Amino acid sequence: MTPGLTSSPQAGRGQGEGSARIAVVGTTSWGTTLAALFARGGSNVALMARSVAEADTLNAARENTRHRPGLRFPDLLTVTADNENLATADVIVLAVPSAALRTNLTRLAPAFSHEATIVSATKGIETDTCLRMSQVIEVFGVEPARILALSGPNFAGEIASGLPAATVVAGVDPTRTRQVQSLLSGTTFRVYTSDDITGVEVGGALKNLIAIACGMSDGLGYGENARAALITRGLAEISRLGTAMGAKPLTFLGLAGIGDLVLSCQGASRNRRLGLAIAQESSLEEALAVSEGVVEGVVTARAIPQLVGKYDVAMPICEGLHAVLFEDKPAVEAVRELMARAARPEQD
Amino acid sequence: MTPGLTSSPQAGRGQGEGSARIAVVGTTSWGTTLAALFARGGSNVALMARSVAEADTLNAARENTRHRPGLRFPDLLTVTADNENLATADVIVLAVPSAALRTNLTRLAPAFSHEATIVSATKGIETDTCLRMSQVIEVFGVEPARILALSGPNFAGEIASGLPAATVVAGVDPTRTRQVQSLLSGTTFRVYTSDDITGVEVGGALKNLIAIACGMSDGLGYGENARAALITRGLAEISRLGTAMGAKPLTFLGLAGIGDLVLSCQGASRNRRLGLAIAQESSLEEALAVSEGVVEGVVTARAIPQLVGKYDVAMPICEGLHAVLFEDKPAVEAVRELMARAARPEQD
Repeated sequence: MTPGLTSSPQAGRGQGEGSARIAVVGTTSWGTTLAALFARGGSNVALMARSVAEADTLNAARENTRHRPGLRFPDLLTVTADNENLATADVIVLAVPSAALRTNLTRLAPAFSHEATIVSATKGIETDTCLRMSQVIEVFGVEPARILALSGPNFAGEIASGLPAATVVAGVDPTRTRQVQSLLSGTTFRVYTSDDITGVEVGGALKNLIAIACGMSDGLGYGENARAALITRGLAEISRLGTAMGAKPLTFLGLAGIGDLVLSCQGASRNRRLGLAIAQESSLEEALAVSEGVVEGVVTARAIPQLVGKYDVAMPICEGLHAVLFEDKPAVEAVRELMARAARPEQD
Repeated sequence: MTPGLTSSPQAGRGQGEGSARIAVVGTTSWGTTLAALFARGGSNVALMARSVAEADTLNAARENTRHRPGLRFPDLLTVTADNENLATADVIVLAVPSAALRTNLTRLAPAFSHEATIVSATKGIETDTCLRMSQVIEVFGVEPARILALSGPNFAGEIASGLPAATVVAGVDPTRTRQVQSLLSGTTFRVYTSDDITGVEVGGALKNLIAIACGMSDGLGYGENARAALITRGLAEISRLGTAMGAKPLTFLGLAGIGDLVLSCQGASRNRRLGLAIAQESSLEEALAVSEGVVEGVVTARAIPQLVGKYDVAMPICEGLHAVLFEDKPAVEAVRELMARAARPEQD
């Protein structure tokens, strides 16, 4: 199996330094996994459920059988619907789908501690406003210095079973990024810090669109060379947009950039599988209906025309994807157009 | 299969502008494929065999059944052992394994036209000298301005069957890079130009080492998150070395950098498969014995200690790989050490 790695659910315990009170909003696969990692590191974790009934069910099972089956809850993890945990938390982690973030904040932000570090573990861009997730959090009166973003090549299932992985926590206050790094790091989960929250959030949101495009290319039988070219040109698009939004270009060379992009464009990623289905002539509605959970790339794709207009950058892959998803353009035509663009010096 | 793409062997014909006399040295899979692409574009191509007997066999079959089965030779492609073709060629393409380049040049360079553009399609670093392939060609008296390097995410089999792909041709003389771009481009094969021959060659050579390391990680069952992290940190190593050698950092964000790296680190790449075999406790000798053709990463890996010393750069993945391949270090120990390096800001 995995010689040299403990694959027990306790794999990370003991490496987190110190402890804190953590509240995780969202009993999603990723929320549950992050809650377990913090608890393994020695923190007291409240995983926030939407109802007392849901909390009771999860606490009784000591497992989130629906979203993260097989991950046994560490002792320090408690599921609760009691918002008092948000008032006393040192760190509040938001792990809900991007389209649900504003609704959740409307309901919960009034209960937040005014000192807590708020960590967005959600990858996306809000459709109508084009706001990054940390900017949506700011709307609710949280000072920017208290807001961090967590992003990287992180399939939750692998992390939950103790396989090695690395992630990035970004924010403007180095004391807060180092605190979360320390609380979350474990033997098999490495946390890097960054001061470029814009770059980390843009990388995490936009890679989902390239992943859908790669799924389409794969579904059309275009092969591995074509996918590698799409990933390369996709990274260029993400870097261009991110830099125009104020990100540091080097961030896109890191785990939250190329790392997460590479992971999402192959294998079992939900966004790639949606692209596969659409290439095989499912409608968007049909493809979404058979997806498990939210396909974040579809949500973020809706913001593309506005982003391209606002920041005046060329994004042929993302624009082609928008046309396929929302303007009835056949996938085969969009991919053919991308491949047929005129030859020219590579860095034009 | 591949709607929108012609998968016939004639797929590329007709887009190459103008024509030229081309000689391709090396009846390898890649040499044969490139010869066919030039011929489809309208050039007269001499594919150079090592003997009259080999030339006769290939010409009779109109197919390289050993190295590139299924690719029918275009009419303009002739296999020959007559070195006169090297004296009259406008473009000479070298597509032999890196370890055989110097021997081939010793035999053939005296016959080369003194005007021809020499294109290295070989990816590697010479073991004892640490020279890039274009530098080995310079040793034989070819002026640097006449030497180009061709590199990118290019599995030959896919290109031979007409699937879309892109590559980079790099050199200091823009007239020569544009000439080769024009002669080689086809409906489904896009050629970009670059003036950074150092970067393009370093990317093409070093990605093979990261691919072996990814194969080891995969073979140890470490999963997709770990592989994505290895690719990310591997690109950082390649960029550091390349920049120290005089390359432009942006080249590593392009097709010959991240594009080729991504392709080689997944799927059916020969280097990745060697890593898989070693992780499953084959010795290097056993793993090489079952590989089809040359595994370039093993050759280039031998140059790592010298490269690290000469350019004074940190290359933990490549050095760990060297220890596994040539110093009897267990793969599991090397991969564990890579994963356990201390957490720190990502761009240190």
